[in-house]
Amino acid sequence: MSHEQRAAIIELMRSAPQSEDRTTAGQRASFDRQFKDRPLGAGVTSRATKLGGVDAIDITVDGGDRPGVILYLHGGGYVVGSANTGSILATALARRVGTPAVSLEYRLAPEHPFPAAVDDAYAAYRALLDGGTPASDIVLAGDSAGGGLVLALLLSARRDGLPLPAGAALFSPWTDLSLSGASMAHREHLDPIFDRAQVQWYADQYLAGQSPLDELVSPAFADLTGLPPLLIQVGSYEVLLDDSLRLAARAAESELDVRLEVVAGAPHVFQLLAGELEEADEALDRAGLFLSDQLVRYEAARQAS
Amino acid sequence: MSHEQRAAIIELMRSAPQSEDRTTAGQRASFDRQFKDRPLGAGVTSRATKLGGVDAIDITVDGGDRPGVILYLHGGGYVVGSANTGSILATALARRVGTPAVSLEYRLAPEHPFPAAVDDAYAAYRALLDGGTPASDIVLAGDSAGGGLVLALLLSARRDGLPLPAGAALFSPWTDLSLSGASMAHREHLDPIFDRAQVQWYADQYLAGQSPLDELVSPAFADLTGLPPLLIQVGSYEVLLDDSLRLAARAAESELDVRLEVVAGAPHVFQLLAGELEEADEALDRAGLFLSDQLVRYEAARQAS
Repeated sequence: MSHEQRAAIIELMRSAPQSEDRTTAGQRASFDRQFKDRPLGAGVTSRATKLGGVDAIDITVDGGDRPGVILYLHGGGYVVGSANTGSILATALARRVGTPAVSLEYRLAPEHPFPAAVDDAYAAYRALLDGGTPASDIVLAGDSAGGGLVLALLLSARRDGLPLPAGAALFSPWTDLSLSGASMAHREHLDPIFDRAQVQWYADQYLAGQSPLDELVSPAFADLTGLPPLLIQVGSYEVLLDDSLRLAARAAESELDVRLEVVAGAPHVFQLLAGELEEADEALDRAGLFLSDQLVRYEAARQAS
Repeated sequence: MSHEQRAAIIELMRSAPQSEDRTTAGQRASFDRQFKDRPLGAGVTSRATKLGGVDAIDITVDGGDRPGVILYLHGGGYVVGSANTGSILATALARRVGTPAVSLEYRLAPEHPFPAAVDDAYAAYRALLDGGTPASDIVLAGDSAGGGLVLALLLSARRDGLPLPAGAALFSPWTDLSLSGASMAHREHLDPIFDRAQVQWYADQYLAGQSPLDELVSPAFADLTGLPPLLIQVGSYEVLLDDSLRLAARAAESELDVRLEVVAGAPHVFQLLAGELEEADEALDRAGLFLSDQLVRYEAARQAS
């Protein structure tokens, strides 16, 4: 797709009416409305479940009976979004990887500030392991705050000596709640979705006065040693661009296999534009291939041993 | 391949005898010896040619008759290496992309310091255009100094308003001849090939007293606006790691489509370990796919217009 077409989509997003209701309930309703009419597509079965005591949606795609599972953590600044909004991208990945996916209804701020979301993600991961799924059959994925939460889950699992999943795909991950990235300023005029004040509002809700420098809150500052391979996808029109650039650098310095893909002129979590923006479909294809490769790699290692 | 196997390869490289001959001729002979017994593989025809007055090797792979050409710029710190040493990776890419490749014998320092290499690369690119090859049928690739030279060529072509190629793949590109990357220090104990003093020696030969801050010498500092999509691959065991990390950040901030792939524990231009290191073959596969995708994208745009 041409740069002109990307620009047209950005203009459309800029001109979209913003919700006037700045309450948490208003923000949640506005966010949910963006997702409610999006079908998951043909051949998809989704049903409510519980995982480690946390509400979740189990997603299976017809023919997707390969061993493995994708644990998906939705975006929404730790304040908005739900297992249901996360199911769009969880399904897109499940379809490509050929495994089921679980989209988690982790608790949200301000009612449940940090570390509630991390605790829920950890409980769900732990339940997958306890239920007999080998860690090597699990991959993680998440967008925005959900991407940061994937990293927090990995760091918590590493801390406790749990076996780690095979890999993780992060879409525009929010990895620095101190908002110290230079892109927070130099991308502000380009980002059609967020400005600094809005990002700060989400951070304030989640932190509830706690330090933004805890590595489970801002994994951009963590030593990532020992984590599995990471794929990071981000648009260049994002105040959160540096959250991805710095994460990739940290990952490299922590001796991880890491891939960073920047799509020029694309907005925050542009993968949600699949069907409208060719680069979104292609990015999801590459993410699916990446996660499949990580599952295969472990399978091969297991068969060889 | 496991991290243990990567580590074993690194140990082997560390224990390899270093050439005692520190003269330019000695360094060149030692470098050439590493390549001289490497076959290009079955079905490959290579022949000496000239491109824009510059010596080169034309490489064709049986069945590789897709429209397009890969212009390959070899590594060797602007001091060692040749079209012949470059033909290993040029052939690996030609095989995967399905087009011919040209490996260029650009002039080397200290006999021919900057900008001789850039002038030669530019003359070769210009000759491809003048010979009737559309820019959109050309992709560039290079390793180490050759990766930096690919960027210098792109910046020169942009400056002069030439049509730009469809994309470029860079293997461990050397993009900062001022050696200001933090990895120059914090990776020195990990890098089995280079230390800072060796990199400085190459820089001194090429610069011959000129500034390392010229963007055609150190494209990590350039505004990269308007350049085609870039793929950057680098190992984490490289003093040149930051040359790739910072280039990726610059590319993102210059609104380019850019992909960065870091392979943990891999050395400088690890793609040369294809056949021994699974990650090398896989990286070449991804580079081939990336370059193919860029050629296809332009073909599709041309047919649509």
